Amino acid sequence: MISTTPFADAIANYKVIFFDSYGVLRTYTGAVPGVANTFDALAAANKHFYVITNDASRSPDLLAQSLHRQGLHAVGADRIISSGMLAKDFLDLKVKTGIVAYLGTEDSAHYIEHPGLEALPLETLEEKDFGRVNALVLLDDEGFDWVKGLNKAVNLMRRRTIPVILANADGAYPVNNQDVGIAIGGLGWMLEKIVGKKLIRFGKPDSQIFMYAYEQVLANLPGITKKDILMVGDTLQTDILGGNKFGLDTVLVLTGNTLPDDAETRIASTGIAPTFICHAAVI
Amino acid sequence: MISTTPFADAIANYKVIFFDSYGVLRTYTGAVPGVANTFDALAAANKHFYVITNDASRSPDLLAQSLHRQGLHAVGADRIISSGMLAKDFLDLKVKTGIVAYLGTEDSAHYIEHPGLEALPLETLEEKDFGRVNALVLLDDEGFDWVKGLNKAVNLMRRRTIPVILANADGAYPVNNQDVGIAIGGLGWMLEKIVGKKLIRFGKPDSQIFMYAYEQVLANLPGITKKDILMVGDTLQTDILGGNKFGLDTVLVLTGNTLPDDAETRIASTGIAPTFICHAAVI
Amino acid sequence: MISTTPFADAIANYKVIFFDSYGVLRTYTGAVPGVANTFDALAAANKHFYVITNDASRSPDLLAQSLHRQGLHAVGADRIISSGMLAKDFLDLKVKTGIVAYLGTEDSAHYIEHPGLEALPLETLEEKDFGRVNALVLLDDEGFDWVKGLNKAVNLMRRRTIPVILANADGAYPVNNQDVGIAIGGLGWMLEKIVGKKLIRFGKPDSQIFMYAYEQVLANLPGITKKDILMVGDTLQTDILGGNKFGLDTVLVLTGNTLPDDAETRIASTGIAPTFICHAAVI
Amino acid sequence: MISTTPFADAIANYKVIFFDSYGVLRTYTGAVPGVANTFDALAAANKHFYVITNDASRSPDLLAQSLHRQGLHAVGADRIISSGMLAKDFLDLKVKTGIVAYLGTEDSAHYIEHPGLEALPLETLEEKDFGRVNALVLLDDEGFDWVKGLNKAVNLMRRRTIPVILANADGAYPVNNQDVGIAIGGLGWMLEKIVGKKLIRFGKPDSQIFMYAYEQVLANLPGITKKDILMVGDTLQTDILGGNKFGLDTVLVLTGNTLPDDAETRIASTGIAPTFICHAAVI
Repeated sequence: MISTTPFADAIANYKVIFFDSYGVLRTYTGAVPGVANTFDALAAANKHFYVITNDASRSPDLLAQSLHRQGLHAVGADRIISSGMLAKDFLDLKVKTGIVAYLGTEDSAHYIEHPGLEALPLETLEEKDFGRVNALVLLDDEGFDWVKGLNKAVNLMRRRTIPVILANADGAYPVNNQDVGIAIGGLGWMLEKIVGKKLIRFGKPDSQIFMYAYEQVLANLPGITKKDILMVGDTLQTDILGGNKFGLDTVLVLTGNTLPDDAETRIASTGIAPTFICHAAVI
Repeated sequence: MISTTPFADAIANYKVIFFDSYGVLRTYTGAVPGVANTFDALAAANKHFYVITNDASRSPDLLAQSLHRQGLHAVGADRIISSGMLAKDFLDLKVKTGIVAYLGTEDSAHYIEHPGLEALPLETLEEKDFGRVNALVLLDDEGFDWVKGLNKAVNLMRRRTIPVILANADGAYPVNNQDVGIAIGGLGWMLEKIVGKKLIRFGKPDSQIFMYAYEQVLANLPGITKKDILMVGDTLQTDILGGNKFGLDTVLVLTGNTLPDDAETRIASTGIAPTFICHAAVI
Repeated sequence: MISTTPFADAIANYKVIFFDSYGVLRTYTGAVPGVANTFDALAAANKHFYVITNDASRSPDLLAQSLHRQGLHAVGADRIISSGMLAKDFLDLKVKTGIVAYLGTEDSAHYIEHPGLEALPLETLEEKDFGRVNALVLLDDEGFDWVKGLNKAVNLMRRRTIPVILANADGAYPVNNQDVGIAIGGLGWMLEKIVGKKLIRFGKPDSQIFMYAYEQVLANLPGITKKDILMVGDTLQTDILGGNKFGLDTVLVLTGNTLPDDAETRIASTGIAPTFICHAAVI
Repeated sequence: MISTTPFADAIANYKVIFFDSYGVLRTYTGAVPGVANTFDALAAANKHFYVITNDASRSPDLLAQSLHRQGLHAVGADRIISSGMLAKDFLDLKVKTGIVAYLGTEDSAHYIEHPGLEALPLETLEEKDFGRVNALVLLDDEGFDWVKGLNKAVNLMRRRTIPVILANADGAYPVNNQDVGIAIGGLGWMLEKIVGKKLIRFGKPDSQIFMYAYEQVLANLPGITKKDILMVGDTLQTDILGGNKFGLDTVLVLTGNTLPDDAETRIASTGIAPTFICHAAVI
């Protein structure tokens, strides 16, 4: 078993904490035991926090409600930065008119609703309207028929030169203590490889989501620098790599994708080293 | 438009012709016009032929029947070498007992039926039987629910150290004059990337299928050398690359994946050069 | 030949212009003819500009001197953002002590000189000091013996869990009208693949360099938004993809990596579309 | 420590043994202790053997002399199948005239000497002769200046549509108990990625080298089937994967690339399972 730092010690010298959600605050069985106390302690110590998640399946409001149902009442929607928000920004800046087709649930379509744009589930898009599509957004693995949706995505991508946005770069997500489910990121890899066109990826480890969060921090707390921020995550390839590259100190917790027995081997074999390793994000 | 060699001239100096099927003998609209005459001419010139296909969706008998329905009566089942036959050989040699789970149609399961083995559609496999599975075979993109089948494949591959065989390495196949369908090879890429374990691929461009065909040739026509055999295909990355690597001369035809306008650019950009380019495999 | 927009028209509605350097302002034969006038016109129209380059072989001062020698006197060192500056920032934030080993010229070592750090050419690093190395930085393809340097890099990366930074993600660069040279990015791919550890890449298309430039803009011109900025580049995969993803409008010029005859095909096959296509960044 | 089978038990039921060389018969310190006895035992039991190696740096004669110097007198040149022999076969069948340029030592050029072909070290090739080059062969990481040779290879590959053959697919090779050296296969990956053209790879795990060896076996011992042959190797990704795919039973030995402590983890994580695991190829 790897030696770890108490979480209270790890966060002592930082003013703002960034948390990943799944695997850090909650797992498939509910909230990580004791994590609600962490938010009380942060408030008592006057430390700020944001939740930075690659989950684009729902709006920040719905994501916050889901955390509230599990007893994490401290996390308001305004504290959540999701990769879907980056996709939304991209559409605002770069796609002004026409149809934006998507793969995902109705909830996930929140991120592509925008005045001037017509958000359309890819399945209901008719071939005669292919010419009016100005972006395709991959939001969630649920909410559509895989055979119809994925085949239509391949052919839309072949026929049109449009941005194809992947709002969640994760390939799979845990569904119980041993199994995973294929995520929209995994489906996106296949589309990219078959068609030979690069998807535009938003979400950790890409630095754009950290920059987005950092701008929120600066708006609320002028003068904060990167040295004052700590990123807490369970996944080396997204949370830790992305945090490190952005210039943040990082904590790897062992309540999610990285197991206590594997942590040292994985750090050595990937070369991705967190500043601290903690058992859980629990004080 | 690229300059081409008449097919009759291209084959003049060879004793055995290997044909790809889809894109060479037939397309989504039926037999390539005039290709039936080619087989008459081959018979008249006493040249032998084999059809070498990455199609593992059906047995050689059913593949031959399908060609017969399109007027290609010369192609008997004994002339067809499919990538499924390589998968069958592998199971014969390396997997002697237990369950062989598969993704594909009932017809495709032909290739995994073997005394001592229990062929089971992956969808009907129960979790309690995961421990008895000794191989997973990816045969066809049809015949199963993608959400259930692909997710179960990911988790079986994560839990068990067993060979996972991809009997058709193609990522997509044409379904009409502009669109494609995702093939089992495309789905296989995704499984491989998500799980991080290499699939065992059979079919062109891998040399094992050419070797299999060559052994058939030698059994019937002792003394034939590789210099006597010509491979005819429509796809640079499978037919031509594989034929070249095995040491055969090759013909690229322009009735399938490689269009007349693209041929020169694609040959230059991939570096895969056929010995001849012909408009069609038609005399 | 593709139809293009006059450069003066393309830039009319933007307040800040970001230029790539190589292939846009200069090529292997010297300054792009007429490009000096562009800077006069920008000054007259009170538009600001930055040069954003993946060239980490020299300091901004030396990069500016090089442009001055080619008659581009308007580009001061304070207008140049190089990928090396991102690497420097990373070291400032994340690597506080010990040896930083590097591959590159003495000039490129500018980016890793920092109080508290000992910058050392990898070739002069002795094995007994491997344990004191806290980062490896890949800066330039020149300045070291490839056999010794690359083999030592592989073994340092295998033995130590340290960040390995690639300060220039380009794989190759043009050396004359038909040939290229292998860049440090190309050497970096090989190290990554052999060792199986991910490099930390700085430079276009990654959004961190655009964010860095954007922060400079905001410091000088408060209130500028992404909609006011135009990115001008010659390479779809770095300049245009990166600019688009960051939310900027983009201009593809045809004086560098993308040739007039190829532009349409490449845009269609990659799916990376600029807002404008201009013959050259010349007014 | 993993539980292993005595090598004598593993080979008991097979008539022909295929050995990898480096990591099985010898290491960087010389012959594996006791392995000479194995060949005596094979002779006594009337079992045949071949050495199947990805080493194309020298002719079979020189490879055999090198084994003799280490006390392995039983291995004659006629028992050695090297990946270079596949490259030689390819040139015999597919490249009849012109220059064959190569990267490697003079010894490695053995494999490209052929009547009608002019074997030329790539470094001595003049640009005016680029048009006469009909193949490029990557044989060994030694014998040429990396900067000049690799850059010239990139530009030759860009300008000419010719087969580029990689006669050794290994990316690196051990040089002592902790370090490796970059092999020609590693350099080849970089060329492939920079130029975007596929190399033609010969050597394990590709089945063509196993087929070549199998043909030698059948010529000497008619009636032998794949079930009678056992492949012994130290590397999962080449020896074991390739042997399994060809339909052979396989032995993993722990004297080379796969260490006793790692073997189980690596088998589970790669999904590549040998039939037997033995401490060493020693009886």
